Amino acid sequence: MSQTSGKPFRRLLLTGAAGNLGKQLRAKLAEWADIVRVSDIVPISDAAAHEEAMQVDLAERAAVHALLEGVDALVHLGGVSVEAPFDDILQANILGLYNVYSAAQKQGVKRIVYASSNHAVGFHPVTEVLDIDAPHRPDGMYGISKCFGEDLSRYYFDRFGLETVCLRIGSSFEQPKNPRMMVTYLSYRDFVELVRCSLFTNRVGHAIIYGVSNNPTLWVDNTKAAFLGFRPQDSSAEFAGRFPATAPDPQMDDWTQRFQGGPFVLMGPMEPKA
Amino acid sequence: MSQTSGKPFRRLLLTGAAGNLGKQLRAKLAEWADIVRVSDIVPISDAAAHEEAMQVDLAERAAVHALLEGVDALVHLGGVSVEAPFDDILQANILGLYNVYSAAQKQGVKRIVYASSNHAVGFHPVTEVLDIDAPHRPDGMYGISKCFGEDLSRYYFDRFGLETVCLRIGSSFEQPKNPRMMVTYLSYRDFVELVRCSLFTNRVGHAIIYGVSNNPTLWVDNTKAAFLGFRPQDSSAEFAGRFPATAPDPQMDDWTQRFQGGPFVLMGPMEPKA
Amino acid sequence: MSQTSGKPFRRLLLTGAAGNLGKQLRAKLAEWADIVRVSDIVPISDAAAHEEAMQVDLAERAAVHALLEGVDALVHLGGVSVEAPFDDILQANILGLYNVYSAAQKQGVKRIVYASSNHAVGFHPVTEVLDIDAPHRPDGMYGISKCFGEDLSRYYFDRFGLETVCLRIGSSFEQPKNPRMMVTYLSYRDFVELVRCSLFTNRVGHAIIYGVSNNPTLWVDNTKAAFLGFRPQDSSAEFAGRFPATAPDPQMDDWTQRFQGGPFVLMGPMEPKA
Amino acid sequence: MSQTSGKPFRRLLLTGAAGNLGKQLRAKLAEWADIVRVSDIVPISDAAAHEEAMQVDLAERAAVHALLEGVDALVHLGGVSVEAPFDDILQANILGLYNVYSAAQKQGVKRIVYASSNHAVGFHPVTEVLDIDAPHRPDGMYGISKCFGEDLSRYYFDRFGLETVCLRIGSSFEQPKNPRMMVTYLSYRDFVELVRCSLFTNRVGHAIIYGVSNNPTLWVDNTKAAFLGFRPQDSSAEFAGRFPATAPDPQMDDWTQRFQGGPFVLMGPMEPKA
Amino acid sequence: MSQTSGKPFRRLLLTGAAGNLGKQLRAKLAEWADIVRVSDIVPISDAAAHEEAMQVDLAERAAVHALLEGVDALVHLGGVSVEAPFDDILQANILGLYNVYSAAQKQGVKRIVYASSNHAVGFHPVTEVLDIDAPHRPDGMYGISKCFGEDLSRYYFDRFGLETVCLRIGSSFEQPKNPRMMVTYLSYRDFVELVRCSLFTNRVGHAIIYGVSNNPTLWVDNTKAAFLGFRPQDSSAEFAGRFPATAPDPQMDDWTQRFQGGPFVLMGPMEPKA
Amino acid sequence: MSQTSGKPFRRLLLTGAAGNLGKQLRAKLAEWADIVRVSDIVPISDAAAHEEAMQVDLAERAAVHALLEGVDALVHLGGVSVEAPFDDILQANILGLYNVYSAAQKQGVKRIVYASSNHAVGFHPVTEVLDIDAPHRPDGMYGISKCFGEDLSRYYFDRFGLETVCLRIGSSFEQPKNPRMMVTYLSYRDFVELVRCSLFTNRVGHAIIYGVSNNPTLWVDNTKAAFLGFRPQDSSAEFAGRFPATAPDPQMDDWTQRFQGGPFVLMGPMEPKA
Repeated sequence: MSQTSGKPFRRLLLTGAAGNLGKQLRAKLAEWADIVRVSDIVPISDAAAHEEAMQVDLAERAAVHALLEGVDALVHLGGVSVEAPFDDILQANILGLYNVYSAAQKQGVKRIVYASSNHAVGFHPVTEVLDIDAPHRPDGMYGISKCFGEDLSRYYFDRFGLETVCLRIGSSFEQPKNPRMMVTYLSYRDFVELVRCSLFTNRVGHAIIYGVSNNPTLWVDNTKAAFLGFRPQDSSAEFAGRFPATAPDPQMDDWTQRFQGGPFVLMGPMEPKA
Repeated sequence: MSQTSGKPFRRLLLTGAAGNLGKQLRAKLAEWADIVRVSDIVPISDAAAHEEAMQVDLAERAAVHALLEGVDALVHLGGVSVEAPFDDILQANILGLYNVYSAAQKQGVKRIVYASSNHAVGFHPVTEVLDIDAPHRPDGMYGISKCFGEDLSRYYFDRFGLETVCLRIGSSFEQPKNPRMMVTYLSYRDFVELVRCSLFTNRVGHAIIYGVSNNPTLWVDNTKAAFLGFRPQDSSAEFAGRFPATAPDPQMDDWTQRFQGGPFVLMGPMEPKA
Repeated sequence: MSQTSGKPFRRLLLTGAAGNLGKQLRAKLAEWADIVRVSDIVPISDAAAHEEAMQVDLAERAAVHALLEGVDALVHLGGVSVEAPFDDILQANILGLYNVYSAAQKQGVKRIVYASSNHAVGFHPVTEVLDIDAPHRPDGMYGISKCFGEDLSRYYFDRFGLETVCLRIGSSFEQPKNPRMMVTYLSYRDFVELVRCSLFTNRVGHAIIYGVSNNPTLWVDNTKAAFLGFRPQDSSAEFAGRFPATAPDPQMDDWTQRFQGGPFVLMGPMEPKA
Repeated sequence: MSQTSGKPFRRLLLTGAAGNLGKQLRAKLAEWADIVRVSDIVPISDAAAHEEAMQVDLAERAAVHALLEGVDALVHLGGVSVEAPFDDILQANILGLYNVYSAAQKQGVKRIVYASSNHAVGFHPVTEVLDIDAPHRPDGMYGISKCFGEDLSRYYFDRFGLETVCLRIGSSFEQPKNPRMMVTYLSYRDFVELVRCSLFTNRVGHAIIYGVSNNPTLWVDNTKAAFLGFRPQDSSAEFAGRFPATAPDPQMDDWTQRFQGGPFVLMGPMEPKA
Repeated sequence: MSQTSGKPFRRLLLTGAAGNLGKQLRAKLAEWADIVRVSDIVPISDAAAHEEAMQVDLAERAAVHALLEGVDALVHLGGVSVEAPFDDILQANILGLYNVYSAAQKQGVKRIVYASSNHAVGFHPVTEVLDIDAPHRPDGMYGISKCFGEDLSRYYFDRFGLETVCLRIGSSFEQPKNPRMMVTYLSYRDFVELVRCSLFTNRVGHAIIYGVSNNPTLWVDNTKAAFLGFRPQDSSAEFAGRFPATAPDPQMDDWTQRFQGGPFVLMGPMEPKA
Repeated sequence: MSQTSGKPFRRLLLTGAAGNLGKQLRAKLAEWADIVRVSDIVPISDAAAHEEAMQVDLAERAAVHALLEGVDALVHLGGVSVEAPFDDILQANILGLYNVYSAAQKQGVKRIVYASSNHAVGFHPVTEVLDIDAPHRPDGMYGISKCFGEDLSRYYFDRFGLETVCLRIGSSFEQPKNPRMMVTYLSYRDFVELVRCSLFTNRVGHAIIYGVSNNPTLWVDNTKAAFLGFRPQDSSAEFAGRFPATAPDPQMDDWTQRFQGGPFVLMGPMEPKA
């Protein structure tokens, strides 16, 4: 990997670049790579000089193989990022992900930073603290597709040495939108730092890490992922006044309060769109 | 569930009924249910009086919903049972399995006995003994689809209370065909007993169990699945003379000897058929 | 401990000697001790020549101290052995047990074999296999008193070196009385053997062991108690025909089927007797 | 729970309100509830306008049932809080605690914050760091009663959904009084914060957490209780000069130095008072 | 490895061939290898036709390198096998073992079966059951040298792929000589079978296994070593009458009864011989 | 231990006093002891008034016994501290260490702070976080000698109560010298603090702790050693600019990047010096 520009990477690929989190990364990636290839299923019209914009449906294999050409490493945010009918998930997150990995392996890509989700373990109760070895407990079709991604990427590492960091991202928004997000909040700044650690740590193997800021209350524990060097700087404590304290909800049967996945646990499986 | 016949089940469904293991079960199921619905992707022409034969492609949703109608419980052996191109796996084992579970849930089926596989954990080395909590280490697309099935069925239990026993079947043949199968051998008799335990244990929740006979050498440990009551009666020791002792193979880089999945670990991903 | 008779013990004490299990032990104890002191809250009228019968209410401290005088070791089956109103449990199993241990410690008794119960862990689900380190999950007041006994005896060992083996006895009857007891059955012969191991193993420290025969289905695992040498010889398999196979009960909310404690989990807390 | 005042709770109950820690909480509770019921075995003469003072002996069942009427949640500091003769412990901490829980369950109380103690695990050596799953090792009758409380409250959660947070409080005083308390110190401010977290976390199930400040040396680890959101702000480091460094004590047989319970490990069982 | 004779190995080396256990193996090794090289520090005068006898002091490096020439695999029983002054242990078991491994690696030997010992873990109490991951707790200089051997062989596997099976041999004699050996007994037949499994299992990596027969009481658990296929056929139960039951010894301070190492725990360190 | 001077220790011994880390400690030790005995294999010519300088070869037993006379506690940095030919390691780190411990035990020394090394576990991959119970994985002869030291000192604690803190020191230099040391860096200040904690914690038993500063990336986790009170104050973050970010090295076979031991993993075993 020659870097005449002095930047660490020659070409980084960002999928899902038009999404909420994709937008947070684009500026930063420019510091790390000469060329940033940005793709999404929707067109990207504001590509900067250092960016190569490509509109790609991940379910189309040939297009994905073209997308991966010449790429050093990949931040994969693309695909469906909420609960959705299974058929949609199947195309974007299962077939689509296979396309991404098989293309990456063929093209010699060395590392993928993969947006997994806390919904891969969303059916664990809120009264447990999960470490990175916690068993899968998906809370819907979306969560199941993230379990699939973690298992698929494990295979590509065991078989081909293609490294992946699976980010089990919590709630990455400008600010927490409800009391649950006080626990799952990941600030944009911490999200970008998490991607930086995932790209630059010398060896990562096949790693799993929770994407949460240093919030007062936590349902997850990243101790075993300390080799990635992620030290969140932000905390939802800053928004403490936003959701005034109330007596605990006495309805023990409200599963959206009982499980870490929150409202997702009741959403699936959705009916296919007509 | 009224059982005027005195048999425990009114109607059991067996998918993959035309396959190797399906054939082992058909006679036995007649003892347990008034009606045995047998299905496969190929036609079944020899249905007995108590059997309802249906030819179904699991990828066809409406057909699968029809297949599950009126079923008390299901032994699901259907789908692709060897390493295959991803697209084939996707149809039969991923889309097909989703169809089975969504139909089962809609139809009020109470339990599914699911043929998972030791290939869900085939990238663990042969020098480790796996208990039922061992992390997924799929050894190919087939193994990945079995991980998917274990995660999907976990969801259907957590969300809807639909119980599944995942059988991580080893090598179930008339007899071991090579030295590796001396370790992974599951006799037909023990296979049938394993299905019996899975169907009749009063509560199983979402369970995982290895399908191996009581072979002298074992790579797996079912201690934590003792609540299923499976006590294998056979052993590959009976075939001990078949593969004479040889000095250990000195080629440390032979992955088919190094990992539990054996030859599967090098097969995938296969190219799609032309 | 001089044993001029050649028997290992000079004087053994058996409490609860008039109960179901006490009766199983009396003959055997005669082989192990010159004198067998037998006590119960009801009178024992059939004392043999080698037996010293004492009628004692465990809640009466002075009587208990007298009971323990001159005793080498003790098999403590006394107290309430079923779910009961808390006040009854408090007298017999909490105050009574304190009286036994404080007297034993004062009298220099070296070892107590204590009848704990699987109801100390009865709120674990039937889909888990418990080893001897499983956390307490009592299923009623009786179970709570057994947790108390395990903790109290731990203290007496840590503080004074007074050894105890806590027997988490399952269902020790002539034969299993219902399907649940097919799992929890402890034959009388295995019960006696378990007491023998507990009395004669040279060092036991503070030990916990499940009292179950080698039944086909098991919810518990004694691997970590192998230092006690208990190898059950019987199995509920012998009674397999007694409870014909039925399809699993579909009522997921039936706690008596869901938890290891069975009917106990719904019994407590009982109202005090008028 | 209607809160016309805007305060989260309508009525909170504080037992042991006249004690050292009770006094720390009274002012704070006024911020969280319209009415604070304060009780103790001794009379409370300084009740504020928002306080309902009740003098109650916990061993008196009817009085305890009256005490719990109309209560939303309870901070239970009452009972014996030091090593004492068993009979005293039995009345206040065992019978008394049963009375509290059976009344709370009958009255529909939703949550109890229970003052357990590090003496429930005091017979662990000072060279181990205990997480919240560490097995019980009580160091006296007081510690045994706290084990009883943890087990009893577990039952009430498993059976009735009545939630409890068990606070294994270390040494909560104005400041550490000896070198051991440099490790076990819990500042008053951190104590109040711990109660706040225990009352306001939306779901707690049955939780255990150590009550210690962020002291330089720690024998306990609250990682698995991170879902409670307790982040201590104080540290015994502030008192570092108070106990000058000395060479370690060479007397290996001094149990008060060897076990976490300190002087408690040698106190019990005390003789009943004449 | 061409085997014109049809025997699996061309040349096996047995060190310590003149010792008690060495003698048990010599006849058996003839079945497995064309040539059996037998060595000891004392002369071996009864070499059979298929045997090459060599008298070697393991501390002499050049001699050890000559000893390893042309060897396929090695059963290493040589060195000091009882507690001894450190200087003797240092020569035979530390320097000597280094010589063996560095020579084996240079000569391309593929596997070593190494006689470790239960004295590597002898300071664990008799009230615990150790699995193969139990931490080292050596009970003397001999035990420390066995820990050294396990660590050294681990290095040679991690660094060079040279495989070792460490046999933590208990008490392998004609029959148990005292009550402790009823627990640690390894029959000669089971010892030979254990070596057979260690030599012929296709891959062993760096393995640890306890060498005990299927005795009624066990302090160790080989579950995690099931990949080696060792199923003991004998049991000390056969000698049950030899050591009549006695009441447990009340002397809690007798360390030879308290720890698994038995009398070894008090032997070391011995003074050097004059 | 009378301390008329008011200093905690009468006489502390520092071995390896002429080395890099020894020099960091000498000034500090003067604050803790009236007399500081400083020794090395090279002469120490700059002894201060409170220092007793002794030139000692650790392999010479009589000299080591003299060295330990009158010593309260010992910081043992002496011996070979890099990878070296086995014979050199054998003399200094194995025979030498035995001499130190046997002399310490004879002289009644109460505690040893022992410089172990992360090379005792250097063959663990950089993608794992090791706690203090991680199994030995030495990465060379030096690492093996440190495993030996940890096992030997364990014995001396179990047998004689002689306490040791094993410091698995990472890279303690003025500053990190390469990217790997950004992870393993231990500042001099934190090193001194670690020794202080190890000397002054009242009871340590046989403890293991990693010697690393609070670096952004960590391969180790000291949670279970929190009883030692070590809170590092420094971090390699201060040197972050020194090693600019580069894309991860794609050579998966570079073991110096793959294992925690770094370059050590390829060094051994070295040939003896001519």
